Amino acid sequence: MNADALSASLIETQAGAYGVPGVVQLTMNRPDAFNALSESLLDALQDALNALAVSQARVVVIAGAGRAFCAGHDLKEMRAAPSLTYYQALFARCTKLMMTIQRLPQPVIARVHGIATAAGCQLVAMCDLAVASDTARFAVSGVNLGLFCATPSVPLSRNLSRKAALEMLLTGDFIDAAEAKQQGLVNRVVPADSLDAEVTRLAVSICAKPVEAVTAGKGLFYRQVEMGIEAAYQLAGQTMACNMMDGSALEGVQAFIDKRPPDWKR
Amino acid sequence: MNADALSASLIETQAGAYGVPGVVQLTMNRPDAFNALSESLLDALQDALNALAVSQARVVVIAGAGRAFCAGHDLKEMRAAPSLTYYQALFARCTKLMMTIQRLPQPVIARVHGIATAAGCQLVAMCDLAVASDTARFAVSGVNLGLFCATPSVPLSRNLSRKAALEMLLTGDFIDAAEAKQQGLVNRVVPADSLDAEVTRLAVSICAKPVEAVTAGKGLFYRQVEMGIEAAYQLAGQTMACNMMDGSALEGVQAFIDKRPPDWKR
Amino acid sequence: MNADALSASLIETQAGAYGVPGVVQLTMNRPDAFNALSESLLDALQDALNALAVSQARVVVIAGAGRAFCAGHDLKEMRAAPSLTYYQALFARCTKLMMTIQRLPQPVIARVHGIATAAGCQLVAMCDLAVASDTARFAVSGVNLGLFCATPSVPLSRNLSRKAALEMLLTGDFIDAAEAKQQGLVNRVVPADSLDAEVTRLAVSICAKPVEAVTAGKGLFYRQVEMGIEAAYQLAGQTMACNMMDGSALEGVQAFIDKRPPDWKR
Repeated sequence: MNADALSASLIETQAGAYGVPGVVQLTMNRPDAFNALSESLLDALQDALNALAVSQARVVVIAGAGRAFCAGHDLKEMRAAPSLTYYQALFARCTKLMMTIQRLPQPVIARVHGIATAAGCQLVAMCDLAVASDTARFAVSGVNLGLFCATPSVPLSRNLSRKAALEMLLTGDFIDAAEAKQQGLVNRVVPADSLDAEVTRLAVSICAKPVEAVTAGKGLFYRQVEMGIEAAYQLAGQTMACNMMDGSALEGVQAFIDKRPPDWKR
Repeated sequence: MNADALSASLIETQAGAYGVPGVVQLTMNRPDAFNALSESLLDALQDALNALAVSQARVVVIAGAGRAFCAGHDLKEMRAAPSLTYYQALFARCTKLMMTIQRLPQPVIARVHGIATAAGCQLVAMCDLAVASDTARFAVSGVNLGLFCATPSVPLSRNLSRKAALEMLLTGDFIDAAEAKQQGLVNRVVPADSLDAEVTRLAVSICAKPVEAVTAGKGLFYRQVEMGIEAAYQLAGQTMACNMMDGSALEGVQAFIDKRPPDWKR
Repeated sequence: MNADALSASLIETQAGAYGVPGVVQLTMNRPDAFNALSESLLDALQDALNALAVSQARVVVIAGAGRAFCAGHDLKEMRAAPSLTYYQALFARCTKLMMTIQRLPQPVIARVHGIATAAGCQLVAMCDLAVASDTARFAVSGVNLGLFCATPSVPLSRNLSRKAALEMLLTGDFIDAAEAKQQGLVNRVVPADSLDAEVTRLAVSICAKPVEAVTAGKGLFYRQVEMGIEAAYQLAGQTMACNMMDGSALEGVQAFIDKRPPDWKR
């Protein structure tokens, strides 16, 4: 097995996942290491997302093989040859991956069935949507080892209230799935055996929408949320006017007026 | 009936609503169209708010006639003569209306008894406070027609957590009133037959406060929330010092010290 | 008793509080005045925090003596000699105290057993964490006297959703501890007789972490939360790389790999 094949096997890419054309599931595949984000796994995930960004995929699901969703960085690898420049490069690489998720044209759903810790919890926070099994648990536990989860704090503090985020970051304690839902870290919590059905439901719903609206909408959402409200409205109005000129929106609105299903060629 | 009278009838303005002097209710009055925001209705609402801005009104309530609160833009009108410049102007007009609510000196309460969709849901998000009947339901459903609710995403993402807002925007699904309360979109949910009583309770409470404090406070709130915390504190300290020099605050504080009701001439 | 002793007695400083070395509790000690923040009490609290900032303390707890946590500014003192410059100086002094809490190297926990109103509620919002007894109640009630709680609105709007914050600010109504927890104002609500145990649990947990991680982490948290996400990630990556080079993190991570407790000399 050459290096490329090895790298590819770290991420299992399944097109048409859940029997839904357009849905691609990326499964982190280091089950014995709780899918810890080694440099190779970071690279494999980055490569897979880069490929999806220019593909016909409509929805991306990120999942984990084995018992855990993702346990964060690979600590053994990280500890092997300490140097400031190495750590700077490592966190920059991880940040690039996280920002790729936010900038991906497709909505990304985290499918969380087990523990999601440190950068694994960050991964959940960075996804656009997240569905959790009631067996999932979440922590930013680096502080337990003397390493504050600084980069995970970035999306955590943009999803949870300040005190809830700080409590997780300062104590390293786990929260369960119900608490994660209440705090805003995940959208839905379901029994373990309903996890795939719930992910499917969301993915099917999004696949049924015209791609132009979804792509422009996701991009707009993250740009406007960082702006003052006036600039946000300016950009949103422009985005919506352009979206309305799409053939798919004109047909969708006309179909609504005509009380018939839209005739979207796809 | 001339054009002015027609326009006026699109918004029913009721002064002294709920038997409370100072409360003005604006009722969107296109019940057969689920109070869809046609250009005429947008203009009528804008005119009504402009008039209230320079009036003695203390609290404004926005309500809807018929079964719905507001179903968003008037799609038939919007589809009639597509052009980018038309849509840009339309969303700019709608944005102006939404920002007028935020800039109004008076607190604005949304009274939501039925569905609030797309720009109707945006209207709820933009109001300072919102009371919903347990029969109310909320969606930003444009994406179902291929038109992402971009402008509604602006206040939605400033009221709800990111994942909750994105789920509504990407799926177009309805949430019920209880979910809307939990997510931060409304303040209160009550049985349908208690809706007026709850709106009244809030309005009476606000009317009992000196106008200077309420007006300065609302204005400060939206300005400071967009600032860094230090600049926010600077502005808030200045606002509060000026407020304290008002006769009403000096009397209110003195009355508190004297353990008597304040003697506010009104 | 000289002025220094008097000032000192307004804040009772207890090192090794809850039997935990490293925990310092500051108890506001004007029980008959519901711990109203007179200028002397503001100064005493500022002095105490300044001293802690350069101390070996690991966690700071802020508590109140008597029945209330803190009833806000001392209204009698505030009303005595009204002038704009006096009020500007007073709110600037209070703001400085609030920002000192946020900038303190140590995490600060509010221990809230009774009412927390106006600047007392602001104090809770500014602390990093807050534990409330189920007997605690919270309000920003200045508006009842004609004085909008402008400076409290700064941290309130950064902890609660907009509509929840505005409702409290415009009505002056109390919320109970359960509502405060749901809204994000406090982390935990416990029966009154479990309050100390819960504060202890949090404090012990934080004291068990290396000081470098906690100090750098708290500082990073508040800086990055005000930035755009890219700048936030840049700063967080840099902070985390530096943190990883600390001896305590290197030892903590190595101990994790070795499946042994870390050997942190302290």
